[in-house]
Amino acid sequence: MDMHNSKEKFLEAADVRLEELQLPQDLKRLSYAQCRRLAKEIRSVMVRVVSKTGGHLASNLGAVELTMALHRVFDSPQDKIVWDVGHQCYSHKILTGRLKEFSTLRRENGISGFPKPEESPHDTFISGHSSTSISVACGFAEAMELKGDKHHVIAVIGDGAMTGGLAYEGLNNGGKNKNLIVILNDNNMSISGNVGAVSGYLRSIRDKESYVRMKQGVEKVLVNTPHVGMPVVKVLKNTKDGVKNMLVRQTTLFEQMGFVYLGPVDGHNLQELEEVLRTAKRYEAPVFVHVNTVKGKGYLPAEKNPSKFHGVSKFDIMTGNPEVSGADCFSTVFGKELVRLAREDDRICAITAAMKYGTGLQYFEAEFPERFYDVGIAEQHAVTFGGALACSGMVPVFAVYSTFLQRAYDQLIHDVAISGAHVVLGIDRAGVVGEDGETHHGMFDVPMLTSVPGASIYAPATYGELRLCLQRAIRKDTGLAAVRYPRGSEKDLCFPIDTPNASYTYTHEDGAKMLLVTYGRVYNAVYKAHMTCEKSGYDTSLLKLTKIFPIQKELAEIAAGYQTVIFFEEGMGNGGISTLFGSMLAEHGFAGRYLRVSADHFVKHASIPSILDQLEMSEQAVCRYIYEYGNKN
Amino acid sequence: MDMHNSKEKFLEAADVRLEELQLPQDLKRLSYAQCRRLAKEIRSVMVRVVSKTGGHLASNLGAVELTMALHRVFDSPQDKIVWDVGHQCYSHKILTGRLKEFSTLRRENGISGFPKPEESPHDTFISGHSSTSISVACGFAEAMELKGDKHHVIAVIGDGAMTGGLAYEGLNNGGKNKNLIVILNDNNMSISGNVGAVSGYLRSIRDKESYVRMKQGVEKVLVNTPHVGMPVVKVLKNTKDGVKNMLVRQTTLFEQMGFVYLGPVDGHNLQELEEVLRTAKRYEAPVFVHVNTVKGKGYLPAEKNPSKFHGVSKFDIMTGNPEVSGADCFSTVFGKELVRLAREDDRICAITAAMKYGTGLQYFEAEFPERFYDVGIAEQHAVTFGGALACSGMVPVFAVYSTFLQRAYDQLIHDVAISGAHVVLGIDRAGVVGEDGETHHGMFDVPMLTSVPGASIYAPATYGELRLCLQRAIRKDTGLAAVRYPRGSEKDLCFPIDTPNASYTYTHEDGAKMLLVTYGRVYNAVYKAHMTCEKSGYDTSLLKLTKIFPIQKELAEIAAGYQTVIFFEEGMGNGGISTLFGSMLAEHGFAGRYLRVSADHFVKHASIPSILDQLEMSEQAVCRYIYEYGNKN
Repeated sequence: MDMHNSKEKFLEAADVRLEELQLPQDLKRLSYAQCRRLAKEIRSVMVRVVSKTGGHLASNLGAVELTMALHRVFDSPQDKIVWDVGHQCYSHKILTGRLKEFSTLRRENGISGFPKPEESPHDTFISGHSSTSISVACGFAEAMELKGDKHHVIAVIGDGAMTGGLAYEGLNNGGKNKNLIVILNDNNMSISGNVGAVSGYLRSIRDKESYVRMKQGVEKVLVNTPHVGMPVVKVLKNTKDGVKNMLVRQTTLFEQMGFVYLGPVDGHNLQELEEVLRTAKRYEAPVFVHVNTVKGKGYLPAEKNPSKFHGVSKFDIMTGNPEVSGADCFSTVFGKELVRLAREDDRICAITAAMKYGTGLQYFEAEFPERFYDVGIAEQHAVTFGGALACSGMVPVFAVYSTFLQRAYDQLIHDVAISGAHVVLGIDRAGVVGEDGETHHGMFDVPMLTSVPGASIYAPATYGELRLCLQRAIRKDTGLAAVRYPRGSEKDLCFPIDTPNASYTYTHEDGAKMLLVTYGRVYNAVYKAHMTCEKSGYDTSLLKLTKIFPIQKELAEIAAGYQTVIFFEEGMGNGGISTLFGSMLAEHGFAGRYLRVSADHFVKHASIPSILDQLEMSEQAVCRYIYEYGNKN
Repeated sequence: MDMHNSKEKFLEAADVRLEELQLPQDLKRLSYAQCRRLAKEIRSVMVRVVSKTGGHLASNLGAVELTMALHRVFDSPQDKIVWDVGHQCYSHKILTGRLKEFSTLRRENGISGFPKPEESPHDTFISGHSSTSISVACGFAEAMELKGDKHHVIAVIGDGAMTGGLAYEGLNNGGKNKNLIVILNDNNMSISGNVGAVSGYLRSIRDKESYVRMKQGVEKVLVNTPHVGMPVVKVLKNTKDGVKNMLVRQTTLFEQMGFVYLGPVDGHNLQELEEVLRTAKRYEAPVFVHVNTVKGKGYLPAEKNPSKFHGVSKFDIMTGNPEVSGADCFSTVFGKELVRLAREDDRICAITAAMKYGTGLQYFEAEFPERFYDVGIAEQHAVTFGGALACSGMVPVFAVYSTFLQRAYDQLIHDVAISGAHVVLGIDRAGVVGEDGETHHGMFDVPMLTSVPGASIYAPATYGELRLCLQRAIRKDTGLAAVRYPRGSEKDLCFPIDTPNASYTYTHEDGAKMLLVTYGRVYNAVYKAHMTCEKSGYDTSLLKLTKIFPIQKELAEIAAGYQTVIFFEEGMGNGGISTLFGSMLAEHGFAGRYLRVSADHFVKHASIPSILDQLEMSEQAVCRYIYEYGNKN
C-alpha cells in the first residue's frame, strides 16, 4: 500500500517516461497532462522506428489518444480490444509492454505490424484484412455471455473498413450484444480517399459536435441515478418519437442497425474520449462510438499527406521524404501498360478496391476517369460489378492484391466464370510480400483460380512479359484471365530476356538428366543456381512457365525426357501448379523422380529474400537440390 | 395497323389467357381486370408445375404482381431486370414467352429454376447465390452510361438477401447511378424467418402506408411540371431539413445510402405498384422502392406455411402436403448427432447462415437456443464469428451448403486457419445437387479447403460414418475441420457397412492389377461396378477414403502395388483430392498408369443420377473404365 502510494506520487509528480511505466496498468494513474506528454513520446517513438523499418504511420499517429483512452477506461485483456485491419495497433503495442521490442517492428523474429495473440494477451485476434473486427467482437461477446463474463468487447474500425460488406454483416448481427462497443475511428479516408455512400454519410455527421454532448449531459444524470436511471435511459434510446427525438432531430444509420450512437467526439481530446467511453461502458446495450481523428496527427509531413504515409518504406524524418526511388515497379508498369491499351480500346475499364496507388491505377484514373472505378474496400462487389460490365460488352480489369482477392472467390465462380464473362484480373503482390507477414502474402490466388473452370493464369517474371501477358489477357483470352506479378521491381534480373514470352521457355541442356520447373520471380534463383552448378559439372535443363494455367499438355512430354523433375512454386502447393503438374506427370506415365518445393504453411514476416530462402527458393537452396538429386557429368 | 387494332380490341374484350398473348409486349395493353385474371392463371400454372417438378414456390407466388408491373412499366430487355438469388423469377419466365417450356422447369434439358441468359434475352444475368443483384445492376448501369444508353436497370432483391454484405457493398456504390432502381421485395422473411438488425428495421417501416402516397402526391405534381418540376424534386430529396422533413419525420437507412426512397407499397396491388414504378422511372437519381409482399400469396397452404414452401419437392396440390418421407437424410443425421454431442460438451455452438432447416439445425436450436446462432445470409460473418468463438474456448460448428461456403474463403484463411482456431464445418449438399444446377452444385469446397494450411476434410458415405467423422472433427481434430456429405439420404447403399470408419478402407483383391480410389457417395457406384466386373473376370481392388485430407502417406505405398490406379472424384479435379493424389504418386515414383475422373466444367441441372452418369461416376461408367483399362484374369 505504501509502495503503491509512493509510486502514485511519483507518477503524479514526474514527467513520466514510457520506459519507466508498468503498462498498461500504470496508464490509469496518470494525469491528463502526463498523458499528453506520453502521447508525444509515443508519436516520437513511432516516427523514429517506422522511419527505419517502414510500416503504417499515418493511421497509427491518428490513433494515439484513442488507444490511451481505451486502456485507461477498460481493463485489457479481460476487456477485449479488437483492432480492425490491425495496422492501427502500434500505440496499443507500445502501451501493452512492447516498447523495447518496438524497434524490431516488422523485422524477422521481431514484433509484427499487426495484432498477434502469440506476442501478447492484449492482442486478441489476428487481423490484417479489412472489416473483420465487428464479427470477431460478436464472437468474443457471445462467448463472454455464455460464460457469464461481464467484461466488454471493443471493436475499433476505420471509416475505410466500413465499406466492406463483412462489417455490415457484423453490425447486422451485433445489434443484440449488450457488452459490445464498436468504435468508428473516422479519419475521413481509408487509404487513398474514401468512396461510396457511407463515406458521404459519415462526412455529413462527423462535424456535428453537439450530438453526444447533449445526449451525454442528459444521460449522465439519468445513468447515475441508480434503479431509476437505467430504465429511463432505455426508454430514451428505444422510443423513436420520445425525448430523444427532441434532443436530436435525426436518427443515424447505426441506430437503425440496433446500436446506441454516441458521437462524434474529438479523437485527440483525451478527456472527451474517456468520457464517451465511460458512458458507452455503462450502457446495457450495444454502443456505437463515432470518433473523429486526423490521420498523421502530430507529424507534419504525414498530416499533410496521409495517403503517402499510409504504408511507407523507410523515410527521412526531417523532410518526410520516403527513401523510394521514382523507378518503376511491377505495379506502375501494369498501370501504364493498361493506359496504353485503353487508348486503343474504349471497352477497357479499370476497377480497384481502395488501392488506386498500390496497384498503379492512378495513371488510368487521370486519363480515363469515366472508365475508372474505385469501389472502396469491397472486393466482392468489384468482381460482381466487373462480371456485369463484361456481360455488357466492356472489358473490366480489376487490379487487386493477391491476398485481398481471397474475398471474392465465390464471385469469381458465380458472377464471372459460370457465364464465361471476360473479366481480367491484375493480381498484384502475388507471392511473398515480406514484412507484412502471414495475413498479406499472396499465396492463395493460384490454388483459388485453378479450381475455377475456364480460368487462365499468367505469371510474368519481367516487365516485358507483364506487358505482353496483359495484352494477351485483354485481347486474346476469353473468360476469366488473370495476370499475377510480385511486389517490387524486376531489378537484379540475371537471366537473359531476349524476347518476352507469354507461354513458356524451355532451356534444354544436352545430357542434362534433371529438369527444373518454375514460374515468376523464382526463375531468377533457379537460373542462377543452374549457372552456378553447371560450373561444377551439374547440368540442368530449365522450364520457365509464363502462362501457368491451364498447363500446356506438351510439357508432360518434355518432362518425360528427364530422370528428375523439380518444381519450385512460390505459393501454396496444394491446388497450385506444382501439384497439378505432378498429377499430369502421373497421368502421363512419368517414371522418374518428381519433387515439389512449395509452401504448405503460413509464412511469418521477414524480408522477401529471407523468406524465399526459408522456402528453399533462393539460389543457394536450389543449388542444394541440384547437388543432392542431380548427377555430375 | 388494322391487325394491331383488332388485337387490341380482342385483348380489351376477352378473358385473356396466357397462351394467347405475345409476351411480354401484350402485357402493356391489358386492363387491370385482365391482369388480375392473368395473375390467377400464372399462380395456377406455378402451383401445378412445381407440384410435379419441385422448386421454389412461396417466393414466386409472392412476386406475381410485382413482375407484371415491372414488365408493364419497363421495356425488357432494353431495360434490364436483375433478379437477386434468382429463385423468384418464375412469373418472369412465364411472362417473357416461356409458358410452354415452363412444364420442363428444373428438368434435364428443360428450363432452369434460375435466370439464365442463354434461355432468353430477358434473363440478364445468372444468379443463384444471394445478394448479388445490386452489384450486377451497378455494372449494367455504368455500362449503359458509358454507351449513352438511357434505359433503366432494376435490381429486385428480397429482404433476406439484404443481410448479405455484398448487397451493402452494392448499395454503397450504387448511390450514384442515375438509371438504377433497387426494388426491395419485402416478404418479411428470408427462408426460415429473418434475423438481425436490418430485418427489425424493415419491419419497423414496412407498415407505414402513408409515406409513399404523400410523397408521390406532392412529387407527381412537381415532376409533371416540365423545367420546373425536376429541380424542385431534387431539392426535395436533397435537403434534409426542407420540405421533405415536413412530409416525413424520419429519413430511412436507404436514403442515407444515397437513394431516393419510395415505399412501402402493397406488392399485390398492381395499380399502386405501377404508380410507384413510374415515379421511380422519372427520377434522375437512384431510387429504392420498398414493396411489401406476402410469401405464398394465392395458394393457401403456402401462405400459411411459407418456410415449408420455400424450396419444395413434389407435393399434393389439394392438401399442400409435400411428398417427403419423414425419413432421415444426411442433414437430419448431422443435426441430431450434433445435439447428442452438445449434450456432453457445453462448448459446442451451432451456426447457420439462414439455413436452419436445410442443415438440420432445428434440433439444436430447440435444445440449446443459447448456443445456436442464425446469422442470416452472411457466410463471411458466420466464419469470422466462429473463429472468435473458437479463440474464446468454444467449439463452433458452422453448418453450411458447400456452394455458399465459397463466400467465406478469405475468412477461413484469415480468421480461422492463421490462428489455428478450432472451427468445425458441416458441409451439406457437397457434390452435385441435381435440379438446382450450376449455381448450386457443391463442387468447390474440397479445392478450397486443400489450399488452407492445417485443414482436415472428411467425406463420410454413410450415416454411421457421418456421426463418427463429426465426433472426430469436434473432439480429436485441432484447427479447421470439415465434414462434407451429400444432399439426400444413404438409401440404396449396396456396400457392406460393418464398422464405420473415419480414415480409409482398403479392399484388397488377390491378383487385382487395378485399384479404384474414391470417396463419399460415389463409392456406391464404384463398389457395384467392382462386383459386376468381378463376375466377368475383372478383379479390382478398392480404396475408399473417409478422411480425404490430408492424404495419408501410406496410400501411395498401397497404390504403388498396382499397374493402374483410377480416382473417381465428385467435384472439381483441380485442387481436389484426385490431383493431389496424382502428384503424390508422381512424388512417390509410381510407374503405373494413373487416371482421374472428375469435374472440370460447370454442370447443368438434371437429376443427380443423370449427372453422375454424365460425369462418368455411375456404375455403368465405372464398369466401362474397368473393361477398358483392366485385365481379365
